[in-house]
This record gives sequence, structure tokens and C-alpha cells, in this order.
Amino acid sequence: MVPTRCLGEHEIINILRQRLELMPDMSVPFGDDVSAVPIGNDGKMAVLKTDMLVAKTDVPSKMSLYCAARKAVVMCVSDFASKGVQPTAVLVALGLPKCLATQNAVIEIADGLNSAAREYGAYIVGGDIGETDDLTISVSLYGMANQDAFMLRNGAKFGDVLAVTGLFGKSAAGLELVLGKDCVVSSKNRLALESAVFSPHARLTEGLVLSKNKCVSASIDSSDGLAWSLYELMRMSGVGFIVETLPVAAEVVEFAGQNNLSIEQLVLYGGEEYELVLTINPENWQIAKTVVEAVGGNLIAIGKATVEKDLILMVNGVKQPIKPCGYEHFKI
Amino acid sequence: MVPTRCLGEHEIINILRQRLELMPDMSVPFGDDVSAVPIGNDGKMAVLKTDMLVAKTDVPSKMSLYCAARKAVVMCVSDFASKGVQPTAVLVALGLPKCLATQNAVIEIADGLNSAAREYGAYIVGGDIGETDDLTISVSLYGMANQDAFMLRNGAKFGDVLAVTGLFGKSAAGLELVLGKDCVVSSKNRLALESAVFSPHARLTEGLVLSKNKCVSASIDSSDGLAWSLYELMRMSGVGFIVETLPVAAEVVEFAGQNNLSIEQLVLYGGEEYELVLTINPENWQIAKTVVEAVGGNLIAIGKATVEKDLILMVNGVKQPIKPCGYEHFKI
Repeated sequence: MVPTRCLGEHEIINILRQRLELMPDMSVPFGDDVSAVPIGNDGKMAVLKTDMLVAKTDVPSKMSLYCAARKAVVMCVSDFASKGVQPTAVLVALGLPKCLATQNAVIEIADGLNSAAREYGAYIVGGDIGETDDLTISVSLYGMANQDAFMLRNGAKFGDVLAVTGLFGKSAAGLELVLGKDCVVSSKNRLALESAVFSPHARLTEGLVLSKNKCVSASIDSSDGLAWSLYELMRMSGVGFIVETLPVAAEVVEFAGQNNLSIEQLVLYGGEEYELVLTINPENWQIAKTVVEAVGGNLIAIGKATVEKDLILMVNGVKQPIKPCGYEHFKI
Repeated sequence: MVPTRCLGEHEIINILRQRLELMPDMSVPFGDDVSAVPIGNDGKMAVLKTDMLVAKTDVPSKMSLYCAARKAVVMCVSDFASKGVQPTAVLVALGLPKCLATQNAVIEIADGLNSAAREYGAYIVGGDIGETDDLTISVSLYGMANQDAFMLRNGAKFGDVLAVTGLFGKSAAGLELVLGKDCVVSSKNRLALESAVFSPHARLTEGLVLSKNKCVSASIDSSDGLAWSLYELMRMSGVGFIVETLPVAAEVVEFAGQNNLSIEQLVLYGGEEYELVLTINPENWQIAKTVVEAVGGNLIAIGKATVEKDLILMVNGVKQPIKPCGYEHFKI
């Protein structure tokens, strides 16, 4: 008998997609960062998203329950941010192991959930509790948006500027530290890198202002890693990308050098970062940069969309392929 | 050092409620079966609910993955049914153990989710996947309703008829069989009782028609058991109840007799049943019964709401208290 092969996350998602009857006329394609359902006939949409945090894979052991609960909300808000939608209401399905059914643990979780929801202008309006072997927090978000406000994954055009809202690599480097690996690091850098793991931020303000000004042709968040996000934009939009400048954080350059790690690996394939990855028509570049900076954010051009459907990194004038890799459950 | 006490589900929920900042002016009170958020100013509400199925506590080992996935959706639809709201969109956060990351298992789960969603007129519009130790399915529902259409838990008045949409006890009796306990049972009864466990139904049609006709003063589903539902209606409405007729299924009478089990225990404290428990002003009783029967359902009067805030079962003219008990996580 041939042993049954264990599927990867993307294979599982593909099977689910194939077996489900899709809602007719979905204005946000199935598989984009959020789902949307029409409210009436005036273009208003109910926007929905669910995201699942599982302690075993998403919460390093040094992370507090407060931070874990906060992260569960941030992960989901980041998807709303990437589409330019304000979340209004949060639902939480909390799977709690018996050892965490204590007053202190529940207070920490409640406070983490609440503070993240309020930080992004939403309220927790309901939820459910179950007993699980491992802490599991499924967060669902609801918001409302006009149909023409969505920044989808599929709108990138040849010649568009490829941009990100921040520098990369800190989460991947921070994870090395948090997991207790033997690394050389200054105290200042340790704080910056570990904070990226413990206290991530979603780029909601940036997403909202970009959507309002309609200057983005495609958008995705980078929670599965920069390379994976680029690959998804490419697949959905039918273009390719050339990355001319790696958006690497200064702390990551230092950390990689001190520990003989690859900057490219940390920046491209790390994941658990919540920057937006965007394409912008060159005509809109200046306005996009201006409005993002006006709300205290950054917009960093890192390359451009190409006709050739390849994902290329240009290093010192030499082209090298970026692998379509990122964090994938069930593959480790 | 005093050992930390393990909290029960209701204690955990109370802590969460206390720590969360509530959304101002919620038209459905926090803790009712669903949550609702205003859409604009015309009384239209986005209705939201999340429910978590965990294999360890909610899926007997003999239950197929198809049935487990279907049940996860039915549990959540039942809450919408109890408020009289049509679900439109379903989100699924699927926690899959590695041993179920196979094509056959994923197909079964996808088909169970899809068939339940379509059965109740909704579509699965998105989701997320994570790797968990135990199968965990968090289902979130979205629908839309007018503010005045909700059948809340808090509207029962003294003198109202207490009614249910079906007979009770089959799930609790079926669970004895499914768990392999040594019971006397006919083949016909086994099928009926086990079906109640494997293939539950939500009373959505009944809930929708009752809401449309505005004949219900309070409503809740009975997923945590009839006694618990009555206790919740009582607590939220500030009335008491006297149950004059136990709504017991014929199969349960026979099964209890053959196996020396208490009918009251099976009917009142079983849980995992998805009937609606309703209160209806006597003036509306006939119309309520007529409209429910017109859609193929049943409405069974089992008692009435009382001024005294007690939960009483009347058996052969003798009053006995019903305990405010039901299934509670973390207590077993």
C-alpha cells in the first residue's frame, strides 16, 4: 500500500477551493486577503476575514499571553490594512488548554485582545470558548467598504512601481534570538529585533490612506514573507517583478554580518512581518508617498513590475531568481 | 502556595466580559447568541457569530470528518436561527492535525462545510488553515437583519407561553450509543438516536418565519441543553419558568425505560441539541404555531413564564426545581 502523503498548506487550500461552491459574482476574488459580500445594491460591501493563531507554530515560548492574544488580532487587521478597509468588529474563538483556564491567564489574553482591537479602532463584540490541547485564537473581523475602494492582489500592471511600507528582516532575525539560538547581538539590536516578534504592527493607517487616495494598483500583506507576497501578486496580476533594492532594516544588516547569516534569506523568506507590499502606477507615486508620509508612514520603492512573469532580484547588476517560498504549515 | 484553581467556561466568559471595552450602543446585548453592528443609520445591522468545534470535546470518535465539519457550521447557524437571521457568508478557520493533512480527509471536511453552508442558504467565502494537535473548526457567520427583527434573550414577559421547536433527549441518548456504552436499543431507535448526534439540524426556517411575523418575545437555541437555555432566558428577561410538559421524544422514552436512565436528565441536561426555546405572548400563540407549521416545523408549548424567578418542573402536580446546569467546558 502506498503511504498517504501529508499535504502542504497550499495544497490543502487548493482542495478546499475546488470542493466549495463559490458565491456568484464575488467582487473580491476567493483567496485574496479578505472576503466581501454586497450590502444592498449601492456598492457597499461587508468585509470579512478570519485568521487562526496556534501557539505551537505562531507563539514562541518566551512570548507572553498578552502578546500572543494581541498578535492574533494584528495578524487579521493586517489583511484588512492590505485591502484598505477599516475593521469595526472583532469576534474571537478562543481554544484554551486546561492549564491556561486560570484567572491570570484569561486576564492577560482578554487584555491583549482588547488592546489590539482598540489600537486599530475596532471592538470585540463576541466570541466562543473551547477546550483545546494548545492555545488557539481564531480572530474574525468585520468592516464595511465601498466596492471601488478595495486594493486587490490582481491589479498590478507592467511598469508599476513596486513598494513596501517598511523594512524587512527583523522578525526573522528576532526569531533566532527568541528561540534562544546562540547569536552575537548588541542590547539595542536585541530589543529592536525581539520587539518585531513580540509586538508586531499592522499598517492600517497606511492602507486606509492609500485606499482613500486610490493610488495603488495591487496590494497584499507580507505575513507569509516578502518573497511569497511578491509571488502571489505576480500570480494574481499576471506580471513579474524585478527587485532592485532589498528593503533591509539596519539592525538586520548588522545582525546578519555578526552571525554569518544571509540578509536575503532574512528579508525575503522570513515571514511574520506585517508590511504592505504594493504596486503603484508611476504617475501616482508622488501622491502615494506624500499621503503615506503625512500619516507618519514610509513608502519605499524596491523595484518594478515587468512583462516577463519572473521574480528577479538584482544584486550588483546581476540578476538572480527569488524562490516562491514562504512559511507554509504542514511542511516542516 | 495556594494552587491556582481551574476556571469553568462561564467564569472565563465573565472575566473576558469584564476586561473588554464594549462597543457603545450595542442593539444586541453582549452575550446574546449573536452580535450586531449597525450598517448606516436606517436600522440595518451586520450580524456576526463565531463558534468553535474541537474534536476532543465535540466530535465522538465514530463521527466522520464530513459530519464533524457539517456540525461545526450547524452549531453556528443555530445561533442565527434563534435570532431569526439568515446567514449569508461563512468563514472557516480550520485547525488540522498533521495526520489529517491528506487528500481524502480534506475533501471530506470541505464537503461537510460546503453542504451545511448551502443547506442553510449561505456560502463559504474564506478562511484560514493552521496546524493543531486536534481537529479544530472555528466557523464565523455573517448576515444582515433589521434591528427590529432580532428575537433576543431578554424579552420574555410574565404569562408568555414557553415553547420549543422539537422534542428533546435524542442527542443525549444517542451519545450513550455513539460512545459505545452497553445499552439496550432497537435498530430503528439506534438509527434515530445516533442520527441526532451525527447529523444535527438548525431550526433556521422556523426562526426566520417567527422573526418575520414578530410573534416571539424571547428566543435562544438549546445547544448547551434545555435547562441551561431556560436559565439564560430567565436571567436575561427577569422572569421565571414553569415547565408543565417535558418535550421528550418517543425514542427517548423507550430508550430511558430499557436502560434505566432518567428521562429528565436526558431531556433537560443533555445539550448538543439545536432546537429553539421561545417565549410567545398568548395572543400571538396561534399565529406563531400556524406560521411554523406552514413551513413544515413544530411549535410545542411546554409551560409558561412566571413572576417568581424560579425554574420549576411540574411532574404529576408536584413542583421540582430544574438545576441551572448544562454542558460546560473545563468542568469535566
